[in-house]
Formats: sequence, structure tokens, C-alpha cells
Amino acid sequence: MSGTLRIIGLGPGAASLRTPEAEAALAGATDLLGYGPYLARVAARPEQRLHPTDNREELDRARHALQLAEGGARVAVVSSGDPGVFAMAAAVFEALEHGPAAWHALDIQVLPGISAMFAVAARLGAPLGHDFCAISLSDNLKPWALVERRLRLAAEAGFAMALYNPISRARPWQLGQAFGILREVLPGSAPVAFATAVSRPEERILIRPLAEADPALADMRTLVLVGSAATRMAGRFLYTPRSASLA
Amino acid sequence: MSGTLRIIGLGPGAASLRTPEAEAALAGATDLLGYGPYLARVAARPEQRLHPTDNREELDRARHALQLAEGGARVAVVSSGDPGVFAMAAAVFEALEHGPAAWHALDIQVLPGISAMFAVAARLGAPLGHDFCAISLSDNLKPWALVERRLRLAAEAGFAMALYNPISRARPWQLGQAFGILREVLPGSAPVAFATAVSRPEERILIRPLAEADPALADMRTLVLVGSAATRMAGRFLYTPRSASLA
Repeated sequence: MSGTLRIIGLGPGAASLRTPEAEAALAGATDLLGYGPYLARVAARPEQRLHPTDNREELDRARHALQLAEGGARVAVVSSGDPGVFAMAAAVFEALEHGPAAWHALDIQVLPGISAMFAVAARLGAPLGHDFCAISLSDNLKPWALVERRLRLAAEAGFAMALYNPISRARPWQLGQAFGILREVLPGSAPVAFATAVSRPEERILIRPLAEADPALADMRTLVLVGSAATRMAGRFLYTPRSASLA
Repeated sequence: MSGTLRIIGLGPGAASLRTPEAEAALAGATDLLGYGPYLARVAARPEQRLHPTDNREELDRARHALQLAEGGARVAVVSSGDPGVFAMAAAVFEALEHGPAAWHALDIQVLPGISAMFAVAARLGAPLGHDFCAISLSDNLKPWALVERRLRLAAEAGFAMALYNPISRARPWQLGQAFGILREVLPGSAPVAFATAVSRPEERILIRPLAEADPALADMRTLVLVGSAATRMAGRFLYTPRSASLA
């Protein structure tokens, strides 16, 4: 009997933000793979096999998932947020492209989840209400010069931005450098939101003008959202108007 | 008694992609407002008041929603996909900013939904697996020159792109013009996906190389997804690798 592979978005944390499609696929899996803290969010049954791994082992995890599915298992690979946004889906297809031909015959589906960037945006108001982009600040898989180039072009384009992987113990200076580049293009008044653990009990959101944005407000679990020059407050809500003009 | 306003993402269409949070808010509403075809997706009870409107009346709809909430109603404003992505959330906060002070005291929340762009990406594989952006091609609320500028900068940055509002009877030439600009920067082999009605019975997805991308493949309900130079097929799946280098 041939197995299946589902690449599942758990959403940002709260069970009320997880789709019925994702819940059904989790319930039907024989094997669940993922970064330990994400797997811990799933209420697995005793007969389901859990394969928690470290968060730097995505490609190995993807290969393992494909092997298990090839062996007949119903495999669930979980990501926080949406699996297509700086998460496991791209790792699985990378493993598939370079793996054995038999893997191409497998029944594979990606099941979307509420992404961190849209969960954060909803909490703030509508900061991504106009054109926007998402950039990972990690230079593990791309040169830092490319990150800098993208930040500059995105600011020149007038995009609001979601910055993923802003900081970690191994990457302590990148976020400060990124703010420096953005300050060269954007007004110091552009709002920056630091959103940590949105929809979970320890949720914390802080908003600062770009001129005073302090990288120390972010940790590994933080999504940093940078407004465009047009982004502003409407009462307690942050939003980017739907209309725009040439600078 | 003071009312509430919930700005709700219905997701792309299938009920299995709607969050429990959204379902609960829909069930608890006294008044539901939205574009007619989106409201028709909600299984409303007889005692709930429906206020369907045309899709060009977002700001009037937002004001109406705030007025009803001010009058004590439990109001649900619905959007397809995520309400923060080219949808009702920004319209509500625009109305709030320019409206009476009393509106600022209202209990307002945005409830995220599975966005069209991530639902489409999941169906295709992981085309947004690396840095990406979202641009509305509508020039109703911004000059076309700004759209062109953003397309060019986004292509130069190497972003994969989700193009919203690609075409309509009133805006017949913009998508063709956009492809022309992208062809000046991106290779003709960059994949373009035309995704219509994802997760609904009439779902249709077509993939073409940018050199052969035909605007006639899109209609009002289509999301157009343009890969970067790195986006490619792994078997039947479209994905953008997690790693990147300077061009």
C-alpha cells in the first residue's frame, strides 16, 4: 500500500486558528515530523509515531518524511504558520527534486495555514493592506549582500514588509543592519512592529518608529513588520491605506 | 449595550479552509456585510440580517458596518481569503480614521483567513518558499506608473510575486502591460501560474512560461503568481528553493 505525505500549516498557535483540513490530516497520520516545539502543539494519539527534530535539520527531515511515505506511512510534516512561507514545503520539494524517481509517484499535498505575517497583521489592524513583501533576514542560505539589496529595493518600491528570522544567537547583528538600510530610504516615522508569539498566551506586540527601532526587542520567535511611508495609526490600529501616489 | 465589529476572512472558498475562530464570529453576528458572492458562502440563520453590496463599495460598506456596531449590533464584515490582503480591513480603518470619535471606542477585531495567495501556493507546491511580494494591479486607487515601478523593482529584487486584481472589464490591458515589464527583467522561462477559484468546485490552474503568458488566461477571480528566475518544477510541483545567490 502506498503512503501519503501532507505538509501541514498549524497556524500561529491558537487551536481556533487551525483549519479543519489541517486537523483532519493530523488525525489521520501515522507519523508526524517537525521541529519539536511545533509537534508539541499537536494533540497526538498514543498510536501515532512522533519524530521531533531540531529546527536546523529541515532537509534531513524532508527526506525522512519522503522515505516514510515511500514505505507506506501516512506522513504529516508540520510547520508553524503556513508551510509555504519560509517553512517545510520548499524543503520537501527540494528533497523531492534531488531524490529517487519513486518519490515522484507519491501522493503529496500542501495544506495551508494561517501565516504568522497575516496573524500579526490582523492583530495590528491592516498594516499589509496595500502592496507588501516578505523577506527572511537569515543569511544561512543566501549571501547577506542579497538581503541588503532586497531590503533597499523593497523600501524604494514602497512595500510594507514582513521580516522573518530577524535574529538568533548565531545571527545577532543582521536586524540592526537591516534597520540601518531601511533608515536610508524610509522616514524615521515609519512604524515598526515587533510581534512575538501571536495568538499564544505569551503574546507580546510593541510598535516603535523606525528611528527608534531597537533590535533587542526581537528574539527568535519574533516577526518584525515594517510599515511603508504611508502606514499610520487609526486610533489604536496600524494600517496602510488602499490608495497610494508616486513619491 | 455597545456593539462589536469583526472583520472576517472566509478563506479561499472550501469550508475546510475556514478557521473555527471565523466560524464562531459568523455564528454570533446579528448583521453580516460583504460583497454578495462572498456573503452567499456563509450559512446564515434566518434571524441574521444580511447586507450584500457590490464589490466597488468598500468604503461605504465599512462606514455602514461601523454605524451598525455603534448602534449596538454584533457586526461581521466578510472578505474572501484574508481580510488584510487587498480586502476589507484597510477600508474599515480608513473609515475609522476619518469618522466620528465615538467609533474609536468600539470593540473591533480582524480575524485572519487563509489568503488566496497561500492557498494557490499550496496547490502548486511552494512557489513562495523564498522571499516574495504581493502587488495589486488595480490602478483604481494608485497611478499605473506606480504599479509599473513596483513590478520592475520586485523583479530586480528577485521576489516571487502574487498579482492581485489582474484584470477586469474596466481594466483590460494592465496584465499584458505587466507581463511586458516583467519580461524586460526576468527570463522568459520564469513560470507564471493562473489560478482561478482555488478550493472551489470550478478550480482551474494553468502554468505557462513568462514568454508565453497570455492575459486571456485570467479573469476577475484569478490570482496570477509569477515565479522568480530560481522558481522551477520538481516533478509536478512548482517551488522556489530556500537558498539563493547574487545574480
